[in-house]
Amino acid sequence: DEPITVGDYLLTRLSQLGVKSMFGLPGDFNLGFLDLVEDHESIEWVGNCNELNAAYAADGYARVHQNSIGVITTTFGVGELSAINGIAGAFSEHIPILHIVGVPSTVQQKNRPVLHHTLGDGRFDAYTKAAEQFTVAQTNLMNLENAASEIDRVLTQCITAARPVYLTLPTDIAKAKISSDGLKTPLVRHTPPNDPGAESFVLDEIVKLVELAEGKVVVLVDACTIRHDVKDEVHDLLAKTHYPVFSAPMGKTAVNESYERYGGIFCGALSRPDILETVKTAKLILYIGAIKSDFNTGNWSYTIPDSAVTSVELHSDHTQVQFARFPSIGMKHLLPRLTERLKPFKPTGKITVPRTVEQAPPDPSTTITHDFLWPTVGGFFGKKDIIVAETGTSSFGILDVPFPDDSIFVSQILWGSIGWTVGDTLGAALAAKQLGLGRTILFVGDGSLQLTVQEISVMIRSGLTPIIFVLNNKGYTIERYLHGKTRKYNDISNWKWTTILSTLGGVEGQTCQSYTVGTKQELTTLLNNATFAKADKIQLVEILMEWDDAPRALKRQAQLSAV
Amino acid sequence: DEPITVGDYLLTRLSQLGVKSMFGLPGDFNLGFLDLVEDHESIEWVGNCNELNAAYAADGYARVHQNSIGVITTTFGVGELSAINGIAGAFSEHIPILHIVGVPSTVQQKNRPVLHHTLGDGRFDAYTKAAEQFTVAQTNLMNLENAASEIDRVLTQCITAARPVYLTLPTDIAKAKISSDGLKTPLVRHTPPNDPGAESFVLDEIVKLVELAEGKVVVLVDACTIRHDVKDEVHDLLAKTHYPVFSAPMGKTAVNESYERYGGIFCGALSRPDILETVKTAKLILYIGAIKSDFNTGNWSYTIPDSAVTSVELHSDHTQVQFARFPSIGMKHLLPRLTERLKPFKPTGKITVPRTVEQAPPDPSTTITHDFLWPTVGGFFGKKDIIVAETGTSSFGILDVPFPDDSIFVSQILWGSIGWTVGDTLGAALAAKQLGLGRTILFVGDGSLQLTVQEISVMIRSGLTPIIFVLNNKGYTIERYLHGKTRKYNDISNWKWTTILSTLGGVEGQTCQSYTVGTKQELTTLLNNATFAKADKIQLVEILMEWDDAPRALKRQAQLSAV
Ligand SMILES: Cc1ncc(C[n+]2csc(CCOP(=O)(O)OP(=O)(O)O)c2C)c(N)n1
Ligand SMILES: Cc1ncc(C[n+]2csc(CCOP(=O)(O)OP(=O)(O)O)c2C)c(N)n1
Ligand SMILES: [Mg+2]
Ligand SMILES: [Mg+2]
Repeated sequence: DEPITVGDYLLTRLSQLGVKSMFGLPGDFNLGFLDLVEDHESIEWVGNCNELNAAYAADGYARVHQNSIGVITTTFGVGELSAINGIAGAFSEHIPILHIVGVPSTVQQKNRPVLHHTLGDGRFDAYTKAAEQFTVAQTNLMNLENAASEIDRVLTQCITAARPVYLTLPTDIAKAKISSDGLKTPLVRHTPPNDPGAESFVLDEIVKLVELAEGKVVVLVDACTIRHDVKDEVHDLLAKTHYPVFSAPMGKTAVNESYERYGGIFCGALSRPDILETVKTAKLILYIGAIKSDFNTGNWSYTIPDSAVTSVELHSDHTQVQFARFPSIGMKHLLPRLTERLKPFKPTGKITVPRTVEQAPPDPSTTITHDFLWPTVGGFFGKKDIIVAETGTSSFGILDVPFPDDSIFVSQILWGSIGWTVGDTLGAALAAKQLGLGRTILFVGDGSLQLTVQEISVMIRSGLTPIIFVLNNKGYTIERYLHGKTRKYNDISNWKWTTILSTLGGVEGQTCQSYTVGTKQELTTLLNNATFAKADKIQLVEILMEWDDAPRALKRQAQLSAV
Repeated sequence: DEPITVGDYLLTRLSQLGVKSMFGLPGDFNLGFLDLVEDHESIEWVGNCNELNAAYAADGYARVHQNSIGVITTTFGVGELSAINGIAGAFSEHIPILHIVGVPSTVQQKNRPVLHHTLGDGRFDAYTKAAEQFTVAQTNLMNLENAASEIDRVLTQCITAARPVYLTLPTDIAKAKISSDGLKTPLVRHTPPNDPGAESFVLDEIVKLVELAEGKVVVLVDACTIRHDVKDEVHDLLAKTHYPVFSAPMGKTAVNESYERYGGIFCGALSRPDILETVKTAKLILYIGAIKSDFNTGNWSYTIPDSAVTSVELHSDHTQVQFARFPSIGMKHLLPRLTERLKPFKPTGKITVPRTVEQAPPDPSTTITHDFLWPTVGGFFGKKDIIVAETGTSSFGILDVPFPDDSIFVSQILWGSIGWTVGDTLGAALAAKQLGLGRTILFVGDGSLQLTVQEISVMIRSGLTPIIFVLNNKGYTIERYLHGKTRKYNDISNWKWTTILSTLGGVEGQTCQSYTVGTKQELTTLLNNATFAKADKIQLVEILMEWDDAPRALKRQAQLSAV
């Protein structure tokens, strides 16, 4: 068969996985490989401003381009280490990313000279050791014999575990040729089948609990429903059982929110009171794809103390039935069988889902408060929009806003690295464009945006047209609620937000448009403006808010976890 | 004795080491400690825009504030990992930095819940394992019994090895009280004395080589002369022997460049031809504090093939006499004895140092070329100025420029992480201000500045007044010389550089001033402007240059290491 360069073998694999964009920065150890990328017919190189932002972008791309992966290429040491927090975040939140690192030649790796970008002490494995902490598979392509199989191995791990993997590509390997034979067999996500005996046992156990619950069952969907590709299986279960369904914060948009049996965001003690009351009437929670982190569970208040709720947890690689853990019983294969078994157990109808939508409480002041902001922007969202919320007042405020069908919620509730949304929005908007989805709408705090602001210039250069709402509240408000309300360390400097786009390469009024809104009236007028809503150029809206205002859920979280 | 909080014990130690500024970002796991910092009488909190920039700033602070250290405080996971490339660079380049990380309470570290900023799998040691790769000592303060001694241990390591150390501070430990007793004994840099027998032997060996060299000895100073605090010992050796002295790129400004026996930058085959010729006439090179990296040695061409030069290398922790390595014979104690032994061996006078200063070659075009730029700005530098050069055309171009006495050259020639100068300039300028030194002058490429641009806003907020020269050559010119001259991956987007300062919080004409210079005339006029030269506000000068122009040394390096 036709020989192919190692680099092109890799690119073909990525192409087979649906990858159309690669993020990263050049560096002398990856330039040879980048030639192949630039010459590739279907994968485009998106040069980022820095490597952390590139990793964030790869994360955003993977979140929106479901069942594909995000890819970032960096250079030895300086580049890859700059990206590591982005990779760790993807590990934490189950996002599949391939991190390709251009490294010194195989000869240099054997002789280990004091090259630039080394630690100067001959250790060439230090970066890999760091990467091992945050990736599920690693490979260093040191010879041509196993290059193809190693590429296949780490990519299979990446899509199966839905987590990052790490691949180093020496300068002399990138363009060396190998057989292209393997490419005929596509890579598949390898979800191991469950042991039939154990699986039946687990199903029986669950059915027993469902019987005991006498129809008072609620389903709770969470992040791994999306990440481990069981949305369809869950929809089928819901359709056939008609159980009411709630979503954990990280599972928001796993189920269409207009679905008649969808009851909103359940987050333990942090839930909206009517939602909390409803869930409390259940006797069994069927919790699918859980990530039981503090901010995703109302500080682990998901087991409601004063109720007799039991729980069954379905995970990608195990199942938990009340107190019993069943290793290796994964939900992908369990769910369809569970649906078959549960069909006869319809809900008794005693649990009805709360369908109230929070409205802005009457308030004569013109100031844009969180109470006003979130219900108001809720009305602006459209089908298939991608809605990104940064850690801070935004990620808490957005939770109570119902989203239109087929919209995608993007937030980093477990990892919570601020600035992440900016890179993520770039990747998300690019994927949305490629997939023909809606607008990409970002809510980001003034503090967070300062960490990663430069990546806006890549959005501009790439012709992307996200709407960026900047919540200018003069600092780190979320932190003020946790500790040090008036401390100087929670202050930031005030930037001229409306000249950001033009400074970073946009032409105001032509390729970009900036706004400041300081009153309720100004905000609603802008949202009602059809040109604005069309989002055919990149737009930034500075929203002036009080330094000490916060959404309901954050105030409550602060009480739970104040330090 | 007076009990003291663990946090204040640490701050007192830092204060004793001369630390006046701490860099970093708040996060909920370090807010308690930051209260102590904010309330501290002599250490000020410098809130950075992001953690990588904060690490760079700590590095810059340590480089200028010699014999003190740089300090950065970050939060668990998201913060510390964002900084890791900056810490690794400090490891590589021998810069003492303390990295303080606010981490979950000791109880949480035992129970290991799925907290925000964790990997979600209960591993609480992953970040420390990564940090171990890039720091010379680590400690996690888990109890009050050894908190003081652990702080003292890692700080002693930091100042002794001149490399970064890592300290994690659980939320419940920061404000707990311990004895302040230990604080009465100041920490000292612990340079172990040499074994007297071995040391005498080494001295004899060196003297033999000096005798053989018949007075044709040259001294070469490098980075560790500065980092391991032997500048005074070296000056003494030079004064008493009168040997000619050259500097490796990383050792620039270890010796005052107006010194009559100083001959310029020696960088093997990359040296200016007259310097190379002179060094070739030597028979022995006494190489002090070497870091023998590719870019610091003209791709290891420091041993000059067609000459009979032998070499003696003095390091902080060993000595190399031609082919023999003597472990544990460090230069701090060896140097004074060596000086005593070498006094009788004056140079024969046959080696005279080249004193020519490169002038801009005649060129009728108005375009600002590298050949024009570097000699021209050379005339602008003043005594005690801090001159920072980013990896790229700048770090190569600056090498041939002679610097005024007591100026400090700051560059990252081994690690070479671009964007580093921006954070570094913040730290350097702050230290310079505290020490009453001169102006801080930065040369940075348009590509590099895009990685870390936001840190300029912290300079503005801190009232610092660096001069920032941005070389706008439409992309990654240094890379174009290495590979892919016209490739798109070496292009970047063109920013409106003159609105950067005002966008990031400056008031143009009042607290900041921006300029674009496109011709030789414009540049010289600006440099001759007394108000500009006074540098009493922050100033940014965009220098328009050709995309394919580069300084002599870079062109030569590219030939040596093209990929
Ligand atoms: C990389 C990183 N550094 C620091 C933190 C700690 N942190 C969490 S939220 C926050 C403040 C966010 O402020 P802003 O974006 O302005 O949001 P808002 O004011 O709306 O709450 C900080 C500093 C973090 N989560 N990640
Ligand atoms: C963090 C990091 N990412 C990538 C690189 C690879 N790299 C080295 S130099 C360079 C280009 C620098 O361009 P610029 O700052 O514009 O300098 P100039 O054009 O003057 O050479 C790049 C991308 C690096 N050294 N460090
Ligand atoms: Mg804010
Ligand atoms: Mg450039």
